[in-house]
Amino acid sequence: MSLNSFGHLFRVTTWGESHGPALGATVDGCPPGVPLTEADIQPWMDARKPGQNKYTTQRQEADQVEILSGTYEGKTTGTPIQLMIRNTDQRSKDYGEIARKFRPGHADITYWQKYGIRDPRGGGRSSARETAARVAAGAVARAALASLAPGLTIRGAMVQMGPHGIDRAAFDWAEVPRNPFWCPDPAAAAAWAGELDALRKSGNSVGAVIEVQASGTPAGLGAPVYGKLDTDLAAAMMSINAVKGVEIGAGFAAATLTGTENADEITMGPDGPVFSSNHAGGILGGISTGQDLVVRFAVKPTSSILAPRKSITLTGEETEIVTKGRHDPCVGIRAVPVGEAMMACVILDHLLLDRGQTGGVRGPIG
Amino acid sequence: MSLNSFGHLFRVTTWGESHGPALGATVDGCPPGVPLTEADIQPWMDARKPGQNKYTTQRQEADQVEILSGTYEGKTTGTPIQLMIRNTDQRSKDYGEIARKFRPGHADITYWQKYGIRDPRGGGRSSARETAARVAAGAVARAALASLAPGLTIRGAMVQMGPHGIDRAAFDWAEVPRNPFWCPDPAAAAAWAGELDALRKSGNSVGAVIEVQASGTPAGLGAPVYGKLDTDLAAAMMSINAVKGVEIGAGFAAATLTGTENADEITMGPDGPVFSSNHAGGILGGISTGQDLVVRFAVKPTSSILAPRKSITLTGEETEIVTKGRHDPCVGIRAVPVGEAMMACVILDHLLLDRGQTGGVRGPIG
Amino acid sequence: MSLNSFGHLFRVTTWGESHGPALGATVDGCPPGVPLTEADIQPWMDARKPGQNKYTTQRQEADQVEILSGTYEGKTTGTPIQLMIRNTDQRSKDYGEIARKFRPGHADITYWQKYGIRDPRGGGRSSARETAARVAAGAVARAALASLAPGLTIRGAMVQMGPHGIDRAAFDWAEVPRNPFWCPDPAAAAAWAGELDALRKSGNSVGAVIEVQASGTPAGLGAPVYGKLDTDLAAAMMSINAVKGVEIGAGFAAATLTGTENADEITMGPDGPVFSSNHAGGILGGISTGQDLVVRFAVKPTSSILAPRKSITLTGEETEIVTKGRHDPCVGIRAVPVGEAMMACVILDHLLLDRGQTGGVRGPIG
Amino acid sequence: MSLNSFGHLFRVTTWGESHGPALGATVDGCPPGVPLTEADIQPWMDARKPGQNKYTTQRQEADQVEILSGTYEGKTTGTPIQLMIRNTDQRSKDYGEIARKFRPGHADITYWQKYGIRDPRGGGRSSARETAARVAAGAVARAALASLAPGLTIRGAMVQMGPHGIDRAAFDWAEVPRNPFWCPDPAAAAAWAGELDALRKSGNSVGAVIEVQASGTPAGLGAPVYGKLDTDLAAAMMSINAVKGVEIGAGFAAATLTGTENADEITMGPDGPVFSSNHAGGILGGISTGQDLVVRFAVKPTSSILAPRKSITLTGEETEIVTKGRHDPCVGIRAVPVGEAMMACVILDHLLLDRGQTGGVRGPIG
Repeated sequence: MSLNSFGHLFRVTTWGESHGPALGATVDGCPPGVPLTEADIQPWMDARKPGQNKYTTQRQEADQVEILSGTYEGKTTGTPIQLMIRNTDQRSKDYGEIARKFRPGHADITYWQKYGIRDPRGGGRSSARETAARVAAGAVARAALASLAPGLTIRGAMVQMGPHGIDRAAFDWAEVPRNPFWCPDPAAAAAWAGELDALRKSGNSVGAVIEVQASGTPAGLGAPVYGKLDTDLAAAMMSINAVKGVEIGAGFAAATLTGTENADEITMGPDGPVFSSNHAGGILGGISTGQDLVVRFAVKPTSSILAPRKSITLTGEETEIVTKGRHDPCVGIRAVPVGEAMMACVILDHLLLDRGQTGGVRGPIG
Repeated sequence: MSLNSFGHLFRVTTWGESHGPALGATVDGCPPGVPLTEADIQPWMDARKPGQNKYTTQRQEADQVEILSGTYEGKTTGTPIQLMIRNTDQRSKDYGEIARKFRPGHADITYWQKYGIRDPRGGGRSSARETAARVAAGAVARAALASLAPGLTIRGAMVQMGPHGIDRAAFDWAEVPRNPFWCPDPAAAAAWAGELDALRKSGNSVGAVIEVQASGTPAGLGAPVYGKLDTDLAAAMMSINAVKGVEIGAGFAAATLTGTENADEITMGPDGPVFSSNHAGGILGGISTGQDLVVRFAVKPTSSILAPRKSITLTGEETEIVTKGRHDPCVGIRAVPVGEAMMACVILDHLLLDRGQTGGVRGPIG
Repeated sequence: MSLNSFGHLFRVTTWGESHGPALGATVDGCPPGVPLTEADIQPWMDARKPGQNKYTTQRQEADQVEILSGTYEGKTTGTPIQLMIRNTDQRSKDYGEIARKFRPGHADITYWQKYGIRDPRGGGRSSARETAARVAAGAVARAALASLAPGLTIRGAMVQMGPHGIDRAAFDWAEVPRNPFWCPDPAAAAAWAGELDALRKSGNSVGAVIEVQASGTPAGLGAPVYGKLDTDLAAAMMSINAVKGVEIGAGFAAATLTGTENADEITMGPDGPVFSSNHAGGILGGISTGQDLVVRFAVKPTSSILAPRKSITLTGEETEIVTKGRHDPCVGIRAVPVGEAMMACVILDHLLLDRGQTGGVRGPIG
Repeated sequence: MSLNSFGHLFRVTTWGESHGPALGATVDGCPPGVPLTEADIQPWMDARKPGQNKYTTQRQEADQVEILSGTYEGKTTGTPIQLMIRNTDQRSKDYGEIARKFRPGHADITYWQKYGIRDPRGGGRSSARETAARVAAGAVARAALASLAPGLTIRGAMVQMGPHGIDRAAFDWAEVPRNPFWCPDPAAAAAWAGELDALRKSGNSVGAVIEVQASGTPAGLGAPVYGKLDTDLAAAMMSINAVKGVEIGAGFAAATLTGTENADEITMGPDGPVFSSNHAGGILGGISTGQDLVVRFAVKPTSSILAPRKSITLTGEETEIVTKGRHDPCVGIRAVPVGEAMMACVILDHLLLDRGQTGGVRGPIG
């Protein structure tokens, strides 16, 4: 992981700013022979696309992906895949105030301090718009995984909005696409709708928790110590804009448990080991067990709000700032497809790493 | 981050198994001219060392570091520093049962599945003993930071044991070294003592939450997107044995807040920007603000417990397993110095990365 | 260096095929605040551009660079710079024969064997057209070097065409842009012209040796063992299409010398150490001495020739192949700006690495 | 490749100085299940070991390797392998003069300039003694290659000493171990013996060219652009002490050829493609063809000579220096096993990379 690149063998470098001509992802190390056209990527882009309902920013972007390289006759060739997404709705606007003041909770002040220069238009590189490139790269990863890990399913859901969690007993993946929150619990979704309407109207915002699961992950992915699967998943999720926490399996709740409670006991099933529970989130010692991978991450509330907040100017004067514009009252919603995309990239990367080092050898049990 | 290496420019590779002749860390990229002898490293080793009180494993290891390379006349030369720690208390023991059975919650089964071979003696590479090498590397990072970031202080504490948190109002760093839990709240420490005694006697274990803070961190460390300071901190902490969650600043609690609540307002102080609060944990857009860096991580309860747990054998037969041996009832305790060491490594690495790319240019404010 | 990326901190990933819609370079890690517009890059593109005289391929490409990201108001921001060059002259053509037969000396057969799929149009990824992206990236490196190493001059020349070397006594940098061969010896250039005319008309080709020098390189760039400056220069040059050999300073001739002959003696000049000669090519122990960096590389003759050559088809049948098309009789000519570009990238990368690790500390002499 | 590490998946980090307590290699990413004990490594160490005849330095080192980690019951476990070699013959000596003066042709001056500190004892990190660690790592690579590429044979030879080449027609691999020069031509070896005797007695030294071949290399190893097999081979060889040039196949001679002469024509043999010649050195477009890999590198004459040479002191005074001590009159001799070791590491690394990305898919021919 090196500034703007992620992954060891399946290596994604995103580039581009919110209001530049385009942004995208340079994807290196994809296996050859993977069927891939723009049509395979677009549905995932559409899922993340802004402006689809009143709960996400009203910026209108087609988010149309163009594949500029790396495929031939609809298949990957093993060479770098350049995925470009043009920015079309960079509304003409005076960025003077944003250029002169630092918005609290934004990267304005740190980019300025670090680089001595920053692109103030729409947050520049620190815009959540960068995540469009991740979703495009994730779609490539999914395409490769389709043949490499045929039974694999990667799914994300929003499991908490502000202080309001879901009822885990009501968790139903089929509900997820039926509401604007990717919420697996219809009752929670209904409650959230009212809540978020009120926040949106008052120009406020709220945080969220996203859960991403991968079922059908082969056992044996990951590596000891620093190449752990959970290490890379944590890095992948924490690298998403506005994420402030990541947990695997029982996560922070594991801290509250005793060893007897936390143990996932093992029995023998018809196809190999079976675990009585999944506190581990599918990972032991950094290596996948074959259980569902379970990752959750916390997204902070959007910092762009209508309530005036104290800040300072470039010249060090104290001021107040109100962030007008087209923003997300709960940016966590659009983080769901992003989290899925990162999960797909990490799993593919570790599949390639594993077959690189071990050749796919597996210790037999039974 | 690549299997057993961590860091971009300050690059640490740990090696070694619990019961091999030695383990250690190969540290590449350390700045030259840093005063460094074994005496600078040993105190940090001693802090992590097992067997210091009844709450940690009774394994007796001197954990004596030897510097095999990379220094001359007590200073680093800029070449790789090899830190070796001999294993001295690999108690002669029959590992036959552990070799034939998979301990629930341990990496036994995943190492076996992945590699088709594993070193069963004391957990081999997956042993928490590997963290001794991290602490040694962290001590090197601290030595370099002493001149590069003179005001920097890195401190860790255990802030939760099982379900029992501390009283944040009673937080006192001075208390931390006064109790065997690195607990900043003396009342909590007293309560934990009784609790952990009971757990230890019953052969059970419990999880914990560790908090690491770095005050005096310069603004401007980190990079956008994948080279974020919080991304690397998350990876660093998640890579520690038994860690299941990581959060920065308000962390998962940020998900429960509104934008107005979460905003860290900015005013102008005598030495530059001052923030009204630190929900961000000292990082905005992946780059340090100059506030305290605040990271917490959740450690699961030790999986080695006396209560029998269901498991399977190599040949797929169902069995029960009781993990006898010298284990930690709350392995979180010894994770405190490890978390500090990882924080030191990440900060030094990002200091070097930052001055590499930007040369230390800083955008002026005021 | 990882498949399609080059460099440690200043990291260039090239992408794109000869006949796809576009190709380019993703440049990560550039220092911020560097003045950079398309106009700074274009002159270097024009120097490499095909079709400028009868000695290079007649493919007509504007090689117009577009900066898609990473700059703001004409300066780099420290974020990834995406450089895109559209392909405009992908002549409509039947690639059926090339798709079915393997051209000797080309990457057709190895791409096919490795990936099981290849883009046959113009050589796809293995086309020398990829070097346009390197030249663009090199121009960014030069822009950054202008302020970081103000006295630095990077210059390349063709010093041998086929068996015909230049007269080193006649070496004159001012001659280089005056002939179509970047030849520093006007007499040699005149002789080569006749020779290459004959080869071109007969549909044959010839190899060449290119020399690149960097004067004004600061002392202290490079690192021991694997991060050597010469290691990275060797890799950089060998990675250019058709290059079969690289040497530093005296290079292969050093093998013929005795220790007394090869020693570059040191005396003290007004500004520091002065060397009596430069057999070392400006590098000792992998680290720059402050003398001119001198690198030479050998370019094989273009494999696309009109003389029929034996080959086989996809189905394993023996056949003959004649490579018609718009090719370079001496592809070495266009390698000159490419070698310069790689030199610029390596020097910048090592400048950043050095100030990252050492902060620019220098041991005083005198 | 990053300061002291080499390789992508099979990653070797060497550490240690000439006169420290030990030196070694940290080897990460080795496949699991490879039979490996010290006895598999020692023969290769012995081949490089100094003091075996009058043509190499009289330093007496046992060069005994200890495996400190990464194996269990004689097999690799997939975790880092630490290879330690103790320094035993660091002759007590006054290094004062070397510490105050810079030896021409040595890294003394550049280490000093870069780091502001250097270990003057025996050259410290820049000593050729570092190559012992490479040979150890190469032996691990060979052990892994034994099962991964069963028909592979890696062999090196000295093909030129000073200006005296061998008679290629007399090339006989069986001769190589029969003379102290690893020379494949017995007549040349006999001539060299007299020549080198004279040089040695006069305290002078001479350069050499080493050739390393790998027969039985599978087709399809390598990757386009920067991950080329020849790029990594060039880097690997250039990183060896005293190497000033590297070439693949016809190498610099390819520059003198026409396209018709240089073409390796392809016909169909019983087992696949057969090439009429091997100007390419077994690599096309950066990817192996299945032919013999052929690499040559030029080694400069040892800079440690008895003839007085002009130099300067730390304080900038002019002086003369004579390098007494136990040095190699032709350090190229001991570079032969080192070149073989680097070749083994590169091939294994690319085998792992290739099966990582492609899974070993191969495009069928015929």
